[in-house]
Amino acid sequence: MDCRRGWSEDFTMTETLLTPDELEAGLRAIGRERYHNLHPFHRLLHSGKLNRGQIQAWALNRYYYQAAIPVKDSFLMARLPTRELRREWRRRIEDHDGRPGEAGGIERWLKLVEGVGLDAAMVERADLILPETRFAVDAYIHFVRDRSVLEAVASSLTELFSPTIISERVSGMLANYDWITQDTLAYFTPRLTQAPKDSDFALAYVREHADTVEKQQAVLAALRFKCDVLWSQLNGLYLAYVAPGLIPPGAFEPSLEEVLA
Amino acid sequence: MDCRRGWSEDFTMTETLLTPDELEAGLRAIGRERYHNLHPFHRLLHSGKLNRGQIQAWALNRYYYQAAIPVKDSFLMARLPTRELRREWRRRIEDHDGRPGEAGGIERWLKLVEGVGLDAAMVERADLILPETRFAVDAYIHFVRDRSVLEAVASSLTELFSPTIISERVSGMLANYDWITQDTLAYFTPRLTQAPKDSDFALAYVREHADTVEKQQAVLAALRFKCDVLWSQLNGLYLAYVAPGLIPPGAFEPSLEEVLA
Repeated sequence: MDCRRGWSEDFTMTETLLTPDELEAGLRAIGRERYHNLHPFHRLLHSGKLNRGQIQAWALNRYYYQAAIPVKDSFLMARLPTRELRREWRRRIEDHDGRPGEAGGIERWLKLVEGVGLDAAMVERADLILPETRFAVDAYIHFVRDRSVLEAVASSLTELFSPTIISERVSGMLANYDWITQDTLAYFTPRLTQAPKDSDFALAYVREHADTVEKQQAVLAALRFKCDVLWSQLNGLYLAYVAPGLIPPGAFEPSLEEVLA
Repeated sequence: MDCRRGWSEDFTMTETLLTPDELEAGLRAIGRERYHNLHPFHRLLHSGKLNRGQIQAWALNRYYYQAAIPVKDSFLMARLPTRELRREWRRRIEDHDGRPGEAGGIERWLKLVEGVGLDAAMVERADLILPETRFAVDAYIHFVRDRSVLEAVASSLTELFSPTIISERVSGMLANYDWITQDTLAYFTPRLTQAPKDSDFALAYVREHADTVEKQQAVLAALRFKCDVLWSQLNGLYLAYVAPGLIPPGAFEPSLEEVLA
């Protein structure tokens, strides 16, 4: 059930059926216009312009997103029709939750969180995150749970654009913050190979199954939606912790020491 | 079903059962700390510091919230156990959707929207609103649909605080913007009597039914959540249209003429 449809959504339908290549070009164009590597918060993060308190706020809030990934993937897996598809999707959950004897992405994110000086248990409680983080991430979970399988798969396609941002982020952060180590950023290394594997599959699925004008427009809208989910999280961080520094009541406040660090 | 509970929520339980008066005092304290009359965007709006383009952005985005009220109230009404309760709640929907021969709140908001120079059809499409607006308002709908009836009722209690902000807003806007008329602000006048009637009922309901520590904490958390819903909408407006003026890709851009007006 999707309570949003029918009263607020407008897919700005076009009447033209696209070829799979045209559809892919449309998806990539959305990434060029809307992916969050274009957000000023990311530029500040990568170029060494943030203080430790601001990086803590980023790591804390972003954890809530990381922790939600296997939740949304479980909702999607529950609706996939074949064991082959579920197996493919299960790999994503294993990447994040870990396998026997192997830490997953969430655990590696907690290492990052500790590496920037936060208490992992506080981060896991998520009671100091920004409302923008909670609402955007929850919107993503609900989208994947409530929309068609095709739209849910399409909403994962921001991973098409993530290897670039990850390379920029890791090299930029290592170069510009002497207190951040390779070990702290260990989350990102496996993502450089995992994300392309995931997005190759999702892209092929979307190219094959989006075979009507309506489905194609829904796929494009799903990717725009997902870009908004990522963008809005950085909006919240920028407003609260960069400028004008408007931290909402009840949200994380970096210590003066971390702000000056 | 609530997909958020159990992996991200922490109600910071206390062990003390409050009296109804103490519970009410707790609810009012939340309003004093977190209600969006404290947000700098509202102070700018009321004191005449915004240009026409900024007021357009506010009216456009706020419409999405207004239009969602009868949706969330319908979800709640569907779960109320008696016809008396449903009748009480139906009045809210009638206030917003209108009665035969009588415009409701949504129609009056469209008058406001036109009064500030926007096209009502564009506003109703809602395709130029901010991601923060969409995610916060949708979060409110999902909350009311998915949580207990008690929490859903409690989340309406921001109306306890709305008469003050409405009086400030109407007198402030009339005094400070010579192009805004009483007629444009007609939305607000009935709210001054409707909101107290609604919140009297909801407060009595909550005082009566929140009879365990867990329910009381859930009620307090519901009101905090709702304050976040309102606050986050103003965060989005502030970041995009006040400072630093970071309008997200695809969102409403006021014309230069309106910005200079």
